[in-house]
Amino acid sequence: MDAADNSRGNPHAHGDRNHADNHEQPGSQHEENGQPAVNQDRLWDSLMELARIGATPKGGVRRLTLTELDRQGRDLVCGWLKEAGCEIRVDRIGNVYGIRPGRLGNGFDASGQPASDPALRPVAVGSHVDTQPSGGKFDGNYGVLAGVEVIRALNDAGVQTERPVAVAIWTNEEGTRFTPVMMGSGVYCAAFTLDHCLAQVDREGISVAQALDEIGYAGSDAPPRFSAYFEPHIEQGPVLEDAGATIGIVEGALGQRWFDIVVTGQDAHAGPTPIELRRDALLAASWLVIEVRRIAAESPDYARGTVGQMFVHPNSRNVIPGRVEFSVDFRNARDETLLSMVEQLRLAASRVEAEDGVQISVEEVVHFPPCAFEPTLVAGIEADAASLGYKAMRLASGAGHDAVYVARTCPTAMIFVPCEGGISHNEIENATPEDLAAGCAVLLRSVVRAAG
Amino acid sequence: MDAADNSRGNPHAHGDRNHADNHEQPGSQHEENGQPAVNQDRLWDSLMELARIGATPKGGVRRLTLTELDRQGRDLVCGWLKEAGCEIRVDRIGNVYGIRPGRLGNGFDASGQPASDPALRPVAVGSHVDTQPSGGKFDGNYGVLAGVEVIRALNDAGVQTERPVAVAIWTNEEGTRFTPVMMGSGVYCAAFTLDHCLAQVDREGISVAQALDEIGYAGSDAPPRFSAYFEPHIEQGPVLEDAGATIGIVEGALGQRWFDIVVTGQDAHAGPTPIELRRDALLAASWLVIEVRRIAAESPDYARGTVGQMFVHPNSRNVIPGRVEFSVDFRNARDETLLSMVEQLRLAASRVEAEDGVQISVEEVVHFPPCAFEPTLVAGIEADAASLGYKAMRLASGAGHDAVYVARTCPTAMIFVPCEGGISHNEIENATPEDLAAGCAVLLRSVVRAAG
Repeated sequence: MDAADNSRGNPHAHGDRNHADNHEQPGSQHEENGQPAVNQDRLWDSLMELARIGATPKGGVRRLTLTELDRQGRDLVCGWLKEAGCEIRVDRIGNVYGIRPGRLGNGFDASGQPASDPALRPVAVGSHVDTQPSGGKFDGNYGVLAGVEVIRALNDAGVQTERPVAVAIWTNEEGTRFTPVMMGSGVYCAAFTLDHCLAQVDREGISVAQALDEIGYAGSDAPPRFSAYFEPHIEQGPVLEDAGATIGIVEGALGQRWFDIVVTGQDAHAGPTPIELRRDALLAASWLVIEVRRIAAESPDYARGTVGQMFVHPNSRNVIPGRVEFSVDFRNARDETLLSMVEQLRLAASRVEAEDGVQISVEEVVHFPPCAFEPTLVAGIEADAASLGYKAMRLASGAGHDAVYVARTCPTAMIFVPCEGGISHNEIENATPEDLAAGCAVLLRSVVRAAG
Repeated sequence: MDAADNSRGNPHAHGDRNHADNHEQPGSQHEENGQPAVNQDRLWDSLMELARIGATPKGGVRRLTLTELDRQGRDLVCGWLKEAGCEIRVDRIGNVYGIRPGRLGNGFDASGQPASDPALRPVAVGSHVDTQPSGGKFDGNYGVLAGVEVIRALNDAGVQTERPVAVAIWTNEEGTRFTPVMMGSGVYCAAFTLDHCLAQVDREGISVAQALDEIGYAGSDAPPRFSAYFEPHIEQGPVLEDAGATIGIVEGALGQRWFDIVVTGQDAHAGPTPIELRRDALLAASWLVIEVRRIAAESPDYARGTVGQMFVHPNSRNVIPGRVEFSVDFRNARDETLLSMVEQLRLAASRVEAEDGVQISVEEVVHFPPCAFEPTLVAGIEADAASLGYKAMRLASGAGHDAVYVARTCPTAMIFVPCEGGISHNEIENATPEDLAAGCAVLLRSVVRAAG
């Protein structure tokens, strides 16, 4: 496919949309002189077409991993990739790779093994097309279709890169039908073994292996190795919208340490027991909820602290609670700061124990280390956003993404765009065509630079 | 029965028990010279005999109201009352009255109606013999059997009082099989209508009327009216034990105001949402739990404040809670102070709304006004405890009792004795024979004074 095909799309991304604030989306205008350019309408239309598969009445998408709907979604994207001249490879956990060859080949050697020379490996863009049970149209899907748009834009402009450009669709990122979450990228980076994941079963007893087979995505290809990996994604949080920024330059993903906390006091009747003789487990737990917030608010490095779950016993109106169980979710970009937050929590627990006459146990149940993205790629995204005239800001990904696992294998970065109200994992998840195209325009520049 | 029968019991209540601290239980010794005296062993043995009906393996009692076991318990006590020379009357809600006539009659006129002259009415002692599903041996039962012991002691000493002395067994105090709680005393004082209560059904669809009929306690007698009513009870709280006191002089029962509070924030993912952009309903609720405690701790008049029940939504480890529902139970001896506590709570809710960006609704769901017991009777109990050498203290009843309803019809007071660890409504509920006899000794003096 060459530059003549340009007639198929509209390189003037905003030509047919009159938005008062379109000064924020100048991407296409900057790319007119023979440079590849993102087609905003084409990207949006592809997103909307994919969103019809599993569409819910409330405007969301329910497309659980490895179901018939997931097959339809994968088939649609693979068709687009093939149309765009990509070869399709599917590995044994069902990850899909659409590869647009470069001047230096397709990233594999003659025997079908990934190139041993990093300089020959593809530059990849990826994410997932499975959704939450009440999911939205953009989570995951945007990353994959931004990759498709990059390849279409390269085709439109007749650009041949040195290294191949690949689009990856990772299997089962959401983890709602099969655990663990981020299964495909986790197998890719050897965080989990293939056999372990293939043997996982859903509530009906269907295994991952069986489900892959049923939808025709039980592949046998060796997965490519990448020279660089980019994952564009809606932010799934309110930071960009709050700051009025279009591009989020993601410095890394926060480390996480989760805790189970049990407060044991003495349950007693609310009427006959004077205040000074109580050992109220809910009062003690409440002080700790406030401490968790204080610790997070006062800590640097994108600190988060959340008590999301709480169970009160016996949970009766006129009985002083004798036991409260609750969770703490601490996140931070630096494990050292994370450990300091934990230390502050333990100190607070000891103080509350002494003051309220209760016992408190604090048990760590989850630990994900922080993941810093490749500084050169991050700086490149920052420079591209600036040269394209987008308001951009550095931030951290608070949630996990396939990129966190892929980062264990190659230089990796993420690009965030705003989503309405910061809402995701919800049928009302929303993003604007302009912001999505802006993220894709930055991505396109980063891919071209990395692919040479 | 006359003083000759004294040989049946042992008026020296502590004669056969060598407790190091028996200086606290001198009751019987003070009563030796012809005055009626409590028989500690007889009281204890009666309690233990009644506790065998519905005894649980863990040492408690399960004797739900208007069951076959309740019938057995009532029959046992009625037998004792008849043996002690009482006539038994049963009213239409199944309340039982054992009446020991006085010099002035039995409290009824010739047509069987309660005496219109207050001076002719019985002095009553009462409580209940139904228990919680996992109840103890003393709650309720002690009040009834202390009344039996008073009559036995009067008989032993050959004392004839001016006014009759009655023992009342109120139907369904606990309210676990049929609502409302304190049904029998509630009907007695016209807090509920008879027809409403007779029509209440349990989970099997059996009505109160049917259950009364089945156990033979569907009476038709007019209930007596009382000149005074006393209810001895285990404290069901830790105040006496904590103070090392034997007698609780109950000034009244606390008023209660209960609230349903709903905090509405915004649920959001714990990872991507920075602290400063959160509207965390659990954080807001935690501040209010602490405020409830502060308000109760700083308010006079036996203030209590309890958050016993809390539900967190969506209650997921990594989701900031968007909604929290919880209960507030405020109690106070003065409704004016209670209202000031409520006002402070509403102010705190407004402050938290503003500070945490949440909405808070506060709805009152229960209101029982405070009940002050008759000052003359209360002072009499205090004087009797002092003259008998018991360490005593004034306190308030935090829980509801039949006495609170009976107080609407005649001068009323309660006497508390300690229970181990303040624990009640539990199979491990416990009290000492000495403390129970001490409470009964004070009761006996008060009854004799009131009965003339």
